[in-house]
Amino acid sequence: MNKAETRFKMIKERHKKTFFKAVKEKKADKQMIPLCRYISSTKNFFTSSSCAGRILLLDVGKEGNKREAAFHSKWHRKVKLKELTEGINKKHQEEELWFKLDPFILHLGTNTLENAEKILKTTRKTGIRRAGIMTVEEGKFIVELIGTQVISFPIKIKEKVLLNEEYLKKALEKANKKLEKNYLQLKKFEKICRKELK
Amino acid sequence: MNKAETRFKMIKERHKKTFFKAVKEKKADKQMIPLCRYISSTKNFFTSSSCAGRILLLDVGKEGNKREAAFHSKWHRKVKLKELTEGINKKHQEEELWFKLDPFILHLGTNTLENAEKILKTTRKTGIRRAGIMTVEEGKFIVELIGTQVISFPIKIKEKVLLNEEYLKKALEKANKKLEKNYLQLKKFEKICRKELK
Repeated sequence: MNKAETRFKMIKERHKKTFFKAVKEKKADKQMIPLCRYISSTKNFFTSSSCAGRILLLDVGKEGNKREAAFHSKWHRKVKLKELTEGINKKHQEEELWFKLDPFILHLGTNTLENAEKILKTTRKTGIRRAGIMTVEEGKFIVELIGTQVISFPIKIKEKVLLNEEYLKKALEKANKKLEKNYLQLKKFEKICRKELK
Repeated sequence: MNKAETRFKMIKERHKKTFFKAVKEKKADKQMIPLCRYISSTKNFFTSSSCAGRILLLDVGKEGNKREAAFHSKWHRKVKLKELTEGINKKHQEEELWFKLDPFILHLGTNTLENAEKILKTTRKTGIRRAGIMTVEEGKFIVELIGTQVISFPIKIKEKVLLNEEYLKKALEKANKKLEKNYLQLKKFEKICRKELK
């Protein structure tokens, strides 16, 4: 086994352990487990980081910098209006509170450029448009995949709620629907991975 | 010159022509021109597609599919409240009208994997987190870069405007600010490109 192969084996093993530990401790994203479990069983691929999509309330500083932003409420599933309004009424630290629907994000690793290309082809077959090789190292290629379902708007500025319940209900309906779509795309990706990535 | 080099030269030449034609016809995104002009002057790099960020009103079908979505109003610059409300009052074709701030998107091409890695390093130096090699072909590597400034929310459903002018004013302020930030990141990227990509 050459140096690149040895390195790849080590990295894959480490990420496999991290994944199964997260599953055991119930920290893994439920919607992501079947895909990650399959990937970990392949010879040439691993997952290093993943989120199946989420709905959040984000504490945002005046300048809107990510640095200052902090999770205020976070759900890795569909959300009820009551949960959302309770979240909104909880005190927040920063100047603004934003509602967000983040799409899935998945880091899929492999051993060679050829296999990284195979991942890219698999994403295209699924209709996932945001995918690219973000890490190029000996024995370690990582492809980042991101969904396109997004919602993002300010809900509260300086303790003042800017939107009424009727709007929040509509926006939350849209967010739950988009989250569902996002899960369906992941399911489709898993199905195609089982054929294409061995 | 080998086959890959010949192919790269042809592709670079074609994209250079397309870019200068767009500039001449005033179809190129003003904020993107200095960066694209510099890249076209280098030996090993080209741009194949770019948008410096934009504010839009998007016609969205009931199912929210991109397929059905069409631009209703589109601005590649900061927007005034009057322009936005005029846009909102114009008749739209589909069930919903969404407000969006899209970040910049840039496709940067090169000839070898090594140079594609160089692009990735340059994006990281700038603080651009969304970047990956999306195309891997002989003599043609394309890196996609995307900004992270995003706003997206429904404004109108079935001809009914859901938000009052006070909210729209606040949201538009945020959007204009995020667009400005997005331009600053592009400027920073251009500056670093001039040092790193020759």
